[in-house]
Amino acid sequence: MRILVGNHIDPSIRERGDMRAWTQRLFWFARPADLLILCCEPDTPFVDHALAHTGVKGGELTILVAPAGAWGDRLLDPASLTEPAFVEQVRSALGPGGPDAVSEVFALWPAAAVAHLAEALGVADRYPGAAFFGQGGGEIGNSKANFRALAAAADVPILPGRVCRSRAEAIAATTALLETSPTAAVVVKQSHNGAGVGNELLVCDPDMEVDHVGARHLHHLAPDPDGVAAYWAKRWSWASGDGRWPVVVEEFAPGADAVYSEHYASDEGTHPTEMGRLLYVGRRLSHQVVPLDAADEPVKAALLDGGTRLAEAYRAIGYRGHLSADALILPGGTVVFTEVNAQVSGSLHIYQQIAHGIVNVTATPRRQVVEYHVPPTWAVPDFAAFQTALNELGLAYDPATRTGVIVSMPALPLAPGAPAQFVFCIAYDPADGYTPVFDQLDAQFAALPAGTYDASQHVGTAAVSFSS
Amino acid sequence: MRILVGNHIDPSIRERGDMRAWTQRLFWFARPADLLILCCEPDTPFVDHALAHTGVKGGELTILVAPAGAWGDRLLDPASLTEPAFVEQVRSALGPGGPDAVSEVFALWPAAAVAHLAEALGVADRYPGAAFFGQGGGEIGNSKANFRALAAAADVPILPGRVCRSRAEAIAATTALLETSPTAAVVVKQSHNGAGVGNELLVCDPDMEVDHVGARHLHHLAPDPDGVAAYWAKRWSWASGDGRWPVVVEEFAPGADAVYSEHYASDEGTHPTEMGRLLYVGRRLSHQVVPLDAADEPVKAALLDGGTRLAEAYRAIGYRGHLSADALILPGGTVVFTEVNAQVSGSLHIYQQIAHGIVNVTATPRRQVVEYHVPPTWAVPDFAAFQTALNELGLAYDPATRTGVIVSMPALPLAPGAPAQFVFCIAYDPADGYTPVFDQLDAQFAALPAGTYDASQHVGTAAVSFSS
Repeated sequence: MRILVGNHIDPSIRERGDMRAWTQRLFWFARPADLLILCCEPDTPFVDHALAHTGVKGGELTILVAPAGAWGDRLLDPASLTEPAFVEQVRSALGPGGPDAVSEVFALWPAAAVAHLAEALGVADRYPGAAFFGQGGGEIGNSKANFRALAAAADVPILPGRVCRSRAEAIAATTALLETSPTAAVVVKQSHNGAGVGNELLVCDPDMEVDHVGARHLHHLAPDPDGVAAYWAKRWSWASGDGRWPVVVEEFAPGADAVYSEHYASDEGTHPTEMGRLLYVGRRLSHQVVPLDAADEPVKAALLDGGTRLAEAYRAIGYRGHLSADALILPGGTVVFTEVNAQVSGSLHIYQQIAHGIVNVTATPRRQVVEYHVPPTWAVPDFAAFQTALNELGLAYDPATRTGVIVSMPALPLAPGAPAQFVFCIAYDPADGYTPVFDQLDAQFAALPAGTYDASQHVGTAAVSFSS
Repeated sequence: MRILVGNHIDPSIRERGDMRAWTQRLFWFARPADLLILCCEPDTPFVDHALAHTGVKGGELTILVAPAGAWGDRLLDPASLTEPAFVEQVRSALGPGGPDAVSEVFALWPAAAVAHLAEALGVADRYPGAAFFGQGGGEIGNSKANFRALAAAADVPILPGRVCRSRAEAIAATTALLETSPTAAVVVKQSHNGAGVGNELLVCDPDMEVDHVGARHLHHLAPDPDGVAAYWAKRWSWASGDGRWPVVVEEFAPGADAVYSEHYASDEGTHPTEMGRLLYVGRRLSHQVVPLDAADEPVKAALLDGGTRLAEAYRAIGYRGHLSADALILPGGTVVFTEVNAQVSGSLHIYQQIAHGIVNVTATPRRQVVEYHVPPTWAVPDFAAFQTALNELGLAYDPATRTGVIVSMPALPLAPGAPAQFVFCIAYDPADGYTPVFDQLDAQFAALPAGTYDASQHVGTAAVSFSS
């Protein structure tokens, strides 16, 4: 049996709003006899749906809800995991085999508290990287600032840029990059955020094409020293978390494709797991495709090579587990890396469990999987309504054809009557593409006018954010 | 020729008060033809003294003072190093060989700005670790929080403790350690500080022996939940730099000896350079002895082994250059590591240049070197007065006997009329020890009543602080 922890980045690093739905993707990873720890009661319609696809029976799993801590059931309070009564509850739930029967501890985020729980249970040796994570290694491995230093040391290509620890350094870095950048545009990145939500794109040319870019925030910069200083006077506090973290200032690469290479780091070494592509619409993460399509072999080789070197570098600092090396393919085909997410990413369940596990994409005839965020223009009332539509349209996943839609996470309205925000996968024949299926669903559910939400604003962030 | 930079931790990480004197220890490292960059005009009496010992002629060195930046000449503003006019000044000073003649760039602290200067000069390949340092690697390598994660991952022994990112985590960690600590005492450490100045010792027993401990601050803790919460309500802001860094909370090890093992990390590997002992008096760093004396072979072997593994771990993240692995020898002989200073420590000039270079301690008859901080009870008006006393007492260093006093840094009064704060070395016969020489100087200069300075207060911090 394994212990699976449905957690997320420690709130002391980044306080997410509501992770009840997103952390339930944990069910994709569940195998018979596993013990799952969640921050809330699971969503029955989603759990039934997921387990029907994986073939695991609900009765074969033990599900424990951690005690409500500082955030109620919206976030898992790391301190709850080591409350003595909860540790005893977990120990009792291990069954007759006790701690000896635990083969692995697996957590969505490498929290110190998971290491402390594993230690309290006497199973720390089965939580890979426990020693490192128990001393704050999770924060080290997930900083976009640390990434730049580790990547540079490993001679992995990154974009020109700097790591800034003060507003003066940020002003100097921005000014220097604007002087050399071919497009007079830079990207500002918070150390700890995900899916482009912590990125701000600064452009001097208001007509620049930026819709496809993974930067939730956009600023039109007056291209002079006053413009740069005014920007940082306003945004240093946001970018640095009131001075809490270094800020990355990086050259903007126009017209690039966002891709990733995922890897697993163990005590023995690292191995690549899968590659994929991320697509942004309105500067918001829209969908991702696995395995990586439409990339030349030399590009794939460069992505694999850099990703492997990054995985080795993160392994060298003590990281163990799954990690995602994110990269851009520049218009000329050059691959540059942009960050590492040393955690269970928002991609692992798609490629490992759904694409390879359920759909078996590499079998003949080949299949491909795309996972979509519900667009901001859709009004889906709840999980049942979406399932009903899938059945009526004949779009539900069909094991016979290995095509169709699988919902990847609970579809919970965050407020009564608000549209549900969630992600869903489409398995498709590469010859057909995913657009025909998406368009049918779009026709069914697009009820809100485009522009309902400003691109800079979160839409159901808590539920739909990918990574960290 | 080499470029030597007399810098210190970036002020954006930790703003020191006045580093004019301490950074001039750079002169110990100078060889003929070197170019030295300082934040201020050098102190002629000290430079003459140091060069007389190393045998380098003043005319063989090029000395450049970086432009005054945000801190005048008290601190080297990293931004000054890459001001275009200064870069040109450095380039001109390289002489007819130009950048090709530069064999190495060496800096007291691994600042990004040094990497940027090296890049601007076209000599980045001669600044070991330039890529890593150019992206903020200096901060990563010098965090006491990161140390715990890296050491744990490398299976190097550390004391029980945790890395805390919030006040709640600090309360929980303190409470947990007090429950298991045999002495009901813990040490709180800032991520970025040095010489125990950023450490606070929390003790429940007011009679505990703590005079010898490297913790400038002391707090008597009411050993109940309210006492712990009250402490953190008051001190979280200090310990974390207003939330800027993780805070280390660690079990206190009573009766331990403070030692270190230094190493050099290059592209090819690491090698140990020397070991030494640190002695604290009144919880203030008082003196250090090289090579390490009075330690059993098994203890030395454990220190060397852990130090080597730490050096390899820091090399793996990208660090290059000298580093110090600090440790405690517990009363039973166990060695536990407490931090790594991935920078030119306050020990390198003592063992590399003075003990091995000038005194040649391993020659027959063997010698030993101690470096003392001028005690808070001494009133030394200036460098000349100290030299006069050394001559009158017959205590100046004598190359014939390879014993006597060498002043390690400028002796500048920080305010008019204030006593000078500095460090000086005593080379001695191990059979005699260093006490006889120290006692003569103490008799000469101890004019201030003990207790003039509270142990928690800085005394000429800017001049005399060791490390970071």
